[in-house]
Amino acid sequence: MATRVDLCNAIRALSMDAVQKANSGHPGAPMGMAEIAEVLWNHNLSHNPTNPQWANRDRFVLSNGHGSMLIYSLLHLTGYDVTIDDIKTFRQLHSRCAGHPEYGYAPGVETTTGPLGQGIANGVGFAMAEKLLANQFNKPGHDIVDHYTYVFLGDGCMMEGVSHEACALAGTWGLGKLVAFWDDNGISIDGHIEGWYTDDTAGRFTAYGWHVQSVDGHDQAAIQAAIDAAKKVTDKPSLICCKTIIGKGSPNKSGSHDCHGSALGDAEVAATRAEIGWPHEPFVIPADVYAGWDQKVKGAKREADWNEKFAAYEKAFPAEAAEFKRRMNNELPANWKAETDKIIAAINEKAEGVASRKASQNAIGALAPLLPEFVGGSADLTGSNLTSTGSFVHVDAKKPGNYISYGVREFGMAAIMNGMALHGGILPFGGTFHMFSDYMKNGMRMSALMHQRVIYVLTHDSIGQGEDGPTHQPVENTSGLRYIPRMDVWRPADATETTVAWVAAVEKKDGPTSLVLSRQNLPGIKHDAKDFDAIRKGGYVFSDVAGAQVIIIANGSELDLAVKAAAELNAAGTKVRVVSMPSTNVFDRQDQAYKDSVLTPGVKRVAVEAAHPDFWRKYVGLEGAVVGIDTFGESAPGGALFKHFGFTVENVVNTVKSVL
Amino acid sequence: MATRVDLCNAIRALSMDAVQKANSGHPGAPMGMAEIAEVLWNHNLSHNPTNPQWANRDRFVLSNGHGSMLIYSLLHLTGYDVTIDDIKTFRQLHSRCAGHPEYGYAPGVETTTGPLGQGIANGVGFAMAEKLLANQFNKPGHDIVDHYTYVFLGDGCMMEGVSHEACALAGTWGLGKLVAFWDDNGISIDGHIEGWYTDDTAGRFTAYGWHVQSVDGHDQAAIQAAIDAAKKVTDKPSLICCKTIIGKGSPNKSGSHDCHGSALGDAEVAATRAEIGWPHEPFVIPADVYAGWDQKVKGAKREADWNEKFAAYEKAFPAEAAEFKRRMNNELPANWKAETDKIIAAINEKAEGVASRKASQNAIGALAPLLPEFVGGSADLTGSNLTSTGSFVHVDAKKPGNYISYGVREFGMAAIMNGMALHGGILPFGGTFHMFSDYMKNGMRMSALMHQRVIYVLTHDSIGQGEDGPTHQPVENTSGLRYIPRMDVWRPADATETTVAWVAAVEKKDGPTSLVLSRQNLPGIKHDAKDFDAIRKGGYVFSDVAGAQVIIIANGSELDLAVKAAAELNAAGTKVRVVSMPSTNVFDRQDQAYKDSVLTPGVKRVAVEAAHPDFWRKYVGLEGAVVGIDTFGESAPGGALFKHFGFTVENVVNTVKSVL
Repeated sequence: MATRVDLCNAIRALSMDAVQKANSGHPGAPMGMAEIAEVLWNHNLSHNPTNPQWANRDRFVLSNGHGSMLIYSLLHLTGYDVTIDDIKTFRQLHSRCAGHPEYGYAPGVETTTGPLGQGIANGVGFAMAEKLLANQFNKPGHDIVDHYTYVFLGDGCMMEGVSHEACALAGTWGLGKLVAFWDDNGISIDGHIEGWYTDDTAGRFTAYGWHVQSVDGHDQAAIQAAIDAAKKVTDKPSLICCKTIIGKGSPNKSGSHDCHGSALGDAEVAATRAEIGWPHEPFVIPADVYAGWDQKVKGAKREADWNEKFAAYEKAFPAEAAEFKRRMNNELPANWKAETDKIIAAINEKAEGVASRKASQNAIGALAPLLPEFVGGSADLTGSNLTSTGSFVHVDAKKPGNYISYGVREFGMAAIMNGMALHGGILPFGGTFHMFSDYMKNGMRMSALMHQRVIYVLTHDSIGQGEDGPTHQPVENTSGLRYIPRMDVWRPADATETTVAWVAAVEKKDGPTSLVLSRQNLPGIKHDAKDFDAIRKGGYVFSDVAGAQVIIIANGSELDLAVKAAAELNAAGTKVRVVSMPSTNVFDRQDQAYKDSVLTPGVKRVAVEAAHPDFWRKYVGLEGAVVGIDTFGESAPGGALFKHFGFTVENVVNTVKSVL
Repeated sequence: MATRVDLCNAIRALSMDAVQKANSGHPGAPMGMAEIAEVLWNHNLSHNPTNPQWANRDRFVLSNGHGSMLIYSLLHLTGYDVTIDDIKTFRQLHSRCAGHPEYGYAPGVETTTGPLGQGIANGVGFAMAEKLLANQFNKPGHDIVDHYTYVFLGDGCMMEGVSHEACALAGTWGLGKLVAFWDDNGISIDGHIEGWYTDDTAGRFTAYGWHVQSVDGHDQAAIQAAIDAAKKVTDKPSLICCKTIIGKGSPNKSGSHDCHGSALGDAEVAATRAEIGWPHEPFVIPADVYAGWDQKVKGAKREADWNEKFAAYEKAFPAEAAEFKRRMNNELPANWKAETDKIIAAINEKAEGVASRKASQNAIGALAPLLPEFVGGSADLTGSNLTSTGSFVHVDAKKPGNYISYGVREFGMAAIMNGMALHGGILPFGGTFHMFSDYMKNGMRMSALMHQRVIYVLTHDSIGQGEDGPTHQPVENTSGLRYIPRMDVWRPADATETTVAWVAAVEKKDGPTSLVLSRQNLPGIKHDAKDFDAIRKGGYVFSDVAGAQVIIIANGSELDLAVKAAAELNAAGTKVRVVSMPSTNVFDRQDQAYKDSVLTPGVKRVAVEAAHPDFWRKYVGLEGAVVGIDTFGESAPGGALFKHFGFTVENVVNTVKSVL
């Protein structure tokens, strides 16, 4: 029978051999964390390798994602569908074993990690999701949502600001079922960390309200005792500081940054084999080692036990059980289409002239009764983003709910929302000033990379933001977000477009949406009902004249300018079509015939958006023109700024004339 | 004679009245921090209102920049060129008193603040600059660089991740002359902070190695004692936690978020006047109050005393004194042009086929002897970014130098570099993977907004990054950075272009530069000497054929593809010009005649860049084509990815044929 030393050495061997074969990767962390991993995955983690989607599994996050061979080793050894051939193709095109753990590639990878600090923040999101869902679904005697979230993280995660934001919130929220293991190996890429990382990390996490322990990360009994103690503290998240030796097992490179981010080299791999007593060929794991790791039978039993509990729950609470299944499957409610059609029609009927942030709040209020999976929030701008409505219950440590005040922590908010979306059962949305999407941009990108339905409510767009000035006026950011693959950006012009955008964002199951919304009031528009479907296409003919000589493309707060300029031009005999283009991303996905029906080939075009003009060249070409802004804004009332920067009917009219 | 109560009330009155007049702004923080401000500005801050540029002034940062009326009040009252009329135009177009303190608008504003957390990080940069310059210039008996940096910050700054990154580094670096005052008022925009901010902040900063004190923020004697104690601790930065009442003086709104971010209202302004005993009309300050604040005479004396010291230094160390003046004036060395011409020519002569990150390292090595103002660094990727060379001395707490390991803290790095650049005397550059420019994007934007010369070294561009996969492969980011006003992005194709880009970045005194560099080797190219000036123009004809029918525009690692495709096409009779476009930002600033000489109007164009294609429509129009990538990358060796995503000669050739 394999010893626990053998089990740990299997991780070391697989990791160093896979990195060596790829001649690329990070052997140090997997080799240094082998004992921690063995204790957790073999003796504590409640998972089922034969069903990585089991709803009540413990979640595991490798926040130090560069150590990806650690999780691939664990998945392979415990029985997930990650074969030895997959591991042999580590870091090659289309391998399940990508350079960093990629969600959707290898089964059992709960989140994509590698951008440091975000994994632990995702972990906070997983744990928060568990807490909120338990509150919503569990009944006395029926704890159907009841699992832990475990996170491994390294020094890099600790240094990143997002770890501060998320871990402070985890403390505030008292996430007792979150247990994090810090790989305290004293090494980062630049070498021994004394020159740049001297935090008293235990003290820091104590200050956040965490339960903190310190252990020898190679002492399995101590690690187990720490896990047991962590579980006993139910009102605080736990950090277990694990003193480890990076690359442990490598006789000449352990304890040094030489083994952090590159292959050990054939000689050192051989020396390590000798050092740790692992005589097997690369990628050969003895049967007794496999047997020692195999979690398939135990895992199936765990799930079967839970299924029994769930069956009892289903019997006692059939509606709740059906709803739980719907939500964990990311399905929309059955009445979704009928109800949202009504909501859109009703909002259109009112045609209120409100700011699109206010229209967004109205849409949230209308959709919330249909979507108990909504978990709203804001980065300390609830009253400005208008992300809350009367139906929401604010979350605090003692009282879970469905609305989160994230504090001034945009990046943490994004990464926590990613974790909640990945957990399943929750549809998170969060607000901040559009400008501060900059602070969380990589978190938004991660939503897109991981195909997660997270809705970003970005208010106070562009110079309409007004008096707060250029630090608060996004002029280049909207287009930057549009370039993120799989991100849909909407910049609606009125209440109806805003509502359609919200509906589209909810219906988009495979990626995030950014709603770019105005601070200032926008005119009320009553659309013809046929527009409802047209708006969903991202761009549509808003008003037309037979034989249009020019098309003005506009969106958001500038649609009104386009409409007024077109009226003036049409009155003077220039035939102008106005296209409203709330979402270029969505419009670009339409078929060519539709696109040509909106932007007739050969017809000159002028785009109007209070944003960087260059983006719009993709629609207006070199012959068209753009009324935009390529400088920073200024501090002044929004109306004064629109005039100052040329967003006037007169300027739009003159620009149209200039292209004809 | 005015009492100190009167002096504080002058701040309260100016702040509430200016916000009331603008009907926009944040009265709460200025009213709550009035006593702290009076102690600091009237009794401790070594400044000279008649010369805000005095080299050895103490630096003051209002990190909670929304409380801008606090600094405008202080500047006005102590004698800076901020008039009462300026204050009356608070938040109006072209006012010196912009909504947030904007660098370059009101004299005495050291840095633009408002994006929370960055001000304290700038402060760390100011203090670091002081320490590094003191090390470089001071001589025994001649402490010509010897000043403090004071920062006010609020709860929002504390919550933001960037405060974690920068403050941890301040502790590591032992910045004893940094003194921060935390406005601990228990309120943020969403209300009382217990639901989202429960950190033991004193414990957190103790964990960073700071000296931490707690005082009543309205007790001036206690504040003074804390400042005195802070100054006595010379090897640690100091945090003074000041318990305050937000909006103090307002009888009905103090202590509540109602006074955080909006005008008090006429009735409450009147009630406040009565409460604090301030009978004067809005914007009227009694002469004795002005007299109590005036720092013009004291300030001139401080500077005169320092000038005397500097004259003695100049006499003893004339070369050092001249160099100090040159550097504080941001002037290039006299031999700059001659030497850099030689450097460019020599590097071109070698025409090495190296990665552009390696070419960048060579350029740094060549320029460093000319530029003692260089302070290099990396966010824990020194060996990957190749940002260090043999001549640099690594900074640690006990030994200042000129190369900084920032740890895995991109945003902190950017904001600290901004602080160092703003201080003067230093030209900071810092590296990270291009992908993680996302993490510091708003810091990069702030460099641009503040016209600061900060150089960002962004290596491992695009899918050439290879095995680390899509989390590490920037495909949309380069264009996002190009859209930041005043940011110059360079993506050079070879060693010579890389060197010219570095020279241009140093010569650009009014804004930042992003150098986007390859991980992988690029072909060596020996340019004709006339290209050197052409490269400086951002885009130039790399190779031409009389009567070109099509222009291929490329840059960075894709120039080689363009060259090879052109060779194949030219051989087959299609006449192709190749344009190398390392910097679209710089090219766009050229005159139209030059631009037309490179991109001849009417000639079809194809752009090739391993990045989002839409950006390039501004050059190729609707009739041209782009070989780009609009999806995320994959994990595989870079060469395999280039082929997989269509970056092949064959695809470029076919794309060119498709547009003809």
